[in-house]
Order: sequence, then structure tokens, then C-alpha cells
Amino acid sequence: MAPEMDQFYRSTMAIYKSIMEQFNPALENLVYLGNNYLRAFHALSEAAEVYFNAIQKIGEQALQSSTSQILGEILVQMSDTQRHLNSDLEVVVQTFHGDLLQHMEKNTKLDVQFIKDSRQHYEIEYRHRAANLEKYMSELWRMERKRDKNAREMKESVNRLHAQMQAFMSESQRAAELEEKRRYRFLAEKHLLLSNTFLHFFGRARSTLQNRVLLWKEQSEASRSPSRAHSPGLLGPVLGPPYPSGRLTPTRLDMVRPWAPPPLFAPPPIPAPATAPWGPRPPPWSLLPPRLPVYAAPLGRPFLPGAASAPPWWLGRRPQNPYADVWDWGWGLD
Amino acid sequence: MAPEMDQFYRSTMAIYKSIMEQFNPALENLVYLGNNYLRAFHALSEAAEVYFNAIQKIGEQALQSSTSQILGEILVQMSDTQRHLNSDLEVVVQTFHGDLLQHMEKNTKLDVQFIKDSRQHYEIEYRHRAANLEKYMSELWRMERKRDKNAREMKESVNRLHAQMQAFMSESQRAAELEEKRRYRFLAEKHLLLSNTFLHFFGRARSTLQNRVLLWKEQSEASRSPSRAHSPGLLGPVLGPPYPSGRLTPTRLDMVRPWAPPPLFAPPPIPAPATAPWGPRPPPWSLLPPRLPVYAAPLGRPFLPGAASAPPWWLGRRPQNPYADVWDWGWGLD
Repeated sequence: MAPEMDQFYRSTMAIYKSIMEQFNPALENLVYLGNNYLRAFHALSEAAEVYFNAIQKIGEQALQSSTSQILGEILVQMSDTQRHLNSDLEVVVQTFHGDLLQHMEKNTKLDVQFIKDSRQHYEIEYRHRAANLEKYMSELWRMERKRDKNAREMKESVNRLHAQMQAFMSESQRAAELEEKRRYRFLAEKHLLLSNTFLHFFGRARSTLQNRVLLWKEQSEASRSPSRAHSPGLLGPVLGPPYPSGRLTPTRLDMVRPWAPPPLFAPPPIPAPATAPWGPRPPPWSLLPPRLPVYAAPLGRPFLPGAASAPPWWLGRRPQNPYADVWDWGWGLD
Repeated sequence: MAPEMDQFYRSTMAIYKSIMEQFNPALENLVYLGNNYLRAFHALSEAAEVYFNAIQKIGEQALQSSTSQILGEILVQMSDTQRHLNSDLEVVVQTFHGDLLQHMEKNTKLDVQFIKDSRQHYEIEYRHRAANLEKYMSELWRMERKRDKNAREMKESVNRLHAQMQAFMSESQRAAELEEKRRYRFLAEKHLLLSNTFLHFFGRARSTLQNRVLLWKEQSEASRSPSRAHSPGLLGPVLGPPYPSGRLTPTRLDMVRPWAPPPLFAPPPIPAPATAPWGPRPPPWSLLPPRLPVYAAPLGRPFLPGAASAPPWWLGRRPQNPYADVWDWGWGLD
């Protein structure tokens, strides 16, 4: 058989071989890895949900306080937002599972027998045609040596068979190439779908957060008010119930429209941090070794208890938060 | 002691109690849940990386093929993109760990002793002042009954002590409220930082994917070409090495600039799918029960082998992919 025929044959066989021994096993492995990937997604959603449920509980405590209702709202809205993001992510996960992994798994299962048959069929058919052609050619050679008068007809048969052989080889090569390309395109297009689903998720997540982060920043800055606002002296309303009982309901409503204007009860902004009740702050705790709180700060309004009756350790001093700045951190955005 | 004083006292004590018994334990729990959340993030990045490394290997196989080099590029670029997204996500994870969890953990540890001391101090000081005031008042009452000439001075002392008591109560209430509000604001502002980091991540991820998904779609559509393009007949270059050996290098380069124009070797688009080598396709396999491939499709170019020598089962038929449409799925984006 002509060497170029033989090379053509080997190249077609090599395509079937690479589908059977490389592509299909790789696709099976991909399905396995994809299922691990999915499990990791689910684990993340769960962990996020548990975490932000805890944030929500703390936010609801803050809503019960007399000082931190706006902050409580922000925390509750944050956990609400996280729930939105989680359900958007669920769409990606569903696509990955339903449109990729399941199809990939089905196709590899279907493919094994089909590719095996195609390859075997091609092999048998090739050998049969090659042998047949050989036979006719040697016959022709014999006839020509004997100057047989039928040699001319025989030469035509050989040419016809050779043309058919070439057609068969090209068709078979194209068929194998088509199958190979189909499989790679399938994989690329499926992951294009996945990438596009991620793209939409990122877009949605971004616009969801964008409005809310701005609102939260405003509200949190508005909440930086002197605690004086909440304790208006001995005979003030603070002596009533510590918080209006209907408070929770409007907050729930605000949750679903975080772009709503800051609530009316937002306290006025403070003139300057210098007016903090305990005067200027000590350096941040993070710079000091952990120790018992220091008793060093003078009172906002100095006064002297009856000297005779005051215990020796009491000289108009009281505990001051040595690491106020660790809490009063400011969110450092911008 | 006057009842409003007593109520004021209980409300201040309640604030310390809620910090000690609600806020701080909740924050500790949050740190624990946050660490689980972090672990889930890391597990997801790992799973994604393993999955897309497998995609990359398949893509590199495709680059070695004679039919699917563009598709191989797309797959390799997809896994490259995934690596970008993973490293962007790492920024979020670092913020969460370094700027939230670690600070939250440190603060709760620091807080316990300080709040305990403040509360105890307030309690002792209140009882001391209350007792002192009671003593002076009963003394005044005694003197007034006896019409004592010093009653007037004593009345002044009582008034002074009472004013000091009021000042002390208000200051203490404000101090407690400040501490409570500080803690809720700390939590809200820290999570505002986290939300903002997520916002930036989503924005970056979106713009990274946007260009690439478009390019991949173009390239994948360009790759829908007749396999004829790859097997130009028996004596064509396909009989040389199945792929140009320098092929891999330019691909690596394309990876880092996926917005580059489709490579030059992109085959011309096909006029119509009707010209597929095996003629019209059967209905998608998904509609048929799994079975051995059928042998039903006529050849693109019919030919007849020497009838005498053909095996009985061979009548110019060959295996046809019964579920071609399962592979030739089209990525259905638009």
C-alpha cells in the first residue's frame, strides 16, 4: 500500500484513539471535579448564611437599644442583602449542575461504545479495501507482463478502486475530525455558558451592593452622635420604656427598600469628637499591652462628694475605656 | 431614694448587662462562625482551581489537535481567567480575616474585664452616694423637727449632694450608652468595609469576564467550520506533522491578551449546517433511549466497492453518530 495512504490511515486512527483514551477519560474526571466544586459552593452559601444570621440577631439587639437603632438597621439590612446574593449565586450553581455536569456525564457514557465501533469499523473496512486493491494491482501486473489483452480493462478497475479508496480515506478522516471537534466545541461552549452565568451574577451582585453600601455609609456616619441625645437628663423620656415598642416593624420595611432615605429618628451629627463625654481619648489600645483599664480621666463635669463620707480610693475618678479607639475605628472607606 | 433615680440606675446597669451578656458573647460566636466562613472560601478557591486546571489540560490537548486549536485556546483562556478571579477573591478573604475577624476577636478579649470593672464601679459609687444622701436628708429632717438653727446650712448640703447625684447619674448613663453604641458601630462599620470589598471584587470580576466572554463567543462561532478545512485530501499537508510545532507558544501569548483578534488560522465560516459531511442529522440523542449507534446514514459521496469482495454487512454504510446533536449543542447565549 502506498506510504501516504498508510500515514493517512494512522492519522485517522490516532484521532479515534485520542477521543477514547484522552478526551473521554478527561471529561469523566471533569465531572468528578465539578461535583466537588459544586459541594464547595453549597458549603460556602451555608457558611455565609449562618454567619449573616448571627449578624442579624446582633442587629435586632441593637434595634432594641436606646442608642443604636440605626446601626441595628444597617446590620439587619446587611444580612438581608447577603440572602439576596446567596439566592443569585444559586442560579449559577444550578446552571453548572444542570447544564454542564449532567450533560457531560451523559455524553461520556453514550460515547464509549460509539467511538469504539466507529474505529473498529474503519479499521476493518480499510484493511478490506487495501487487500482488495493489492489483489487487483498484482493481477494487473501479472497480466501486463503476459501482455494479456484484458490488461486494459483491469487497469481501469484498479484506477476505479484506487479512486474509491481515496474517497473512503478522506471521508473517514473528515468523519473522525468532526467527532473530535464536536467534543472540544461542546466543552468550550458549555463553559462559555457557565462564564456568562457568572458574568450576569457579578453584574447583579455589584448593582445590589452599590446602592446599599452608599446608604449604609451615610446612615453609619449619621449615627456618630453624642450619646447625650439619648439621655436627656434625669427627668427626660429615657425614664420611660427604653425603646418605642412599635420600632421593629418599620425597620423590617426599610430592609426591603434600603435605598429609602435615612429614617427620621436619625440623630443630628456631632460638631467634633473633642466633645466626647470623657474628653480627649487615650492612644489606641492596640499600641498598649493588654492590662486592666486605667482610672485616669477627669469627669466631664467635676464635682466633689462629701469628703468625710467618700471611700479613700474614690477621688472623683471612674473607669475610662483604655481602648476606646479600638472600637471607635471608623470604617476607613474612601 | 427617689423612684426616678432608682429607674435611672436600673437602666444604666441594664446597658452594662447587655454588653456583657449579649453583645460580647455574640461577637465571640461571630468570630467562630467567621472562621468557618473563611474556610469555606478557601475550599471553594481550591476546588475551582483544581477544576480549571483540568480544563486547561483538555485545552492543551485540543491545541495539539489538527481540528480544535481555537477551541483549545478558549479553554486555556478560561482557566487562566479563573485564576485571575481566584486571586481577586483572595483580597476579599484577606480583608475579612485581617480587618474583621482578628479585630473582633481582640476586642472581645479586651472588653470583658473593662466592662465588668465599669459596672462594678458604678454600682459601688451609686450605693455610696445614695446612702450618703439618705443620711444627710434624715439628718435634715431631724434638725427641722427640732427647729435646729443649722437646718438651713444642712438643707444647702442636701441640695448640693442631690445636684451632684443627678450629675453623676447622667454622666454614668451617658458613659454606658457611649460604650454600647461604640460596639454596635464597630460591628456595622467593619461589615461596611467587608461589603465594600465585595463590591469592588464584583466590579472587577464583571469587567474581567465581560471582554473575554465576548471574544470566546466570537472565536467559538468562528470555529464552526467544515472539518474539510483540516483534511485537504490525500496528498495535502495533513500528511505532514498533524500540527505546526511552534503552535503552543503564540497560544500562551494569546492567553494573557484574550481581547486579541481571532488568530489568523481561524477557518472560514460554513455556508450552512446542511453541508455537514454526513448530511442531515438525526434527532438529538436525548430524545432516544441509549442504544448502540445506528448504521443508517448514506455517505456524503456515494461509492461502491467491488461487490464480489465486500463483506455482506458492508453496503456502503458506516457508523453515524446517533447523538451528534448532544455534542453539537451550541452555547445558546444571546
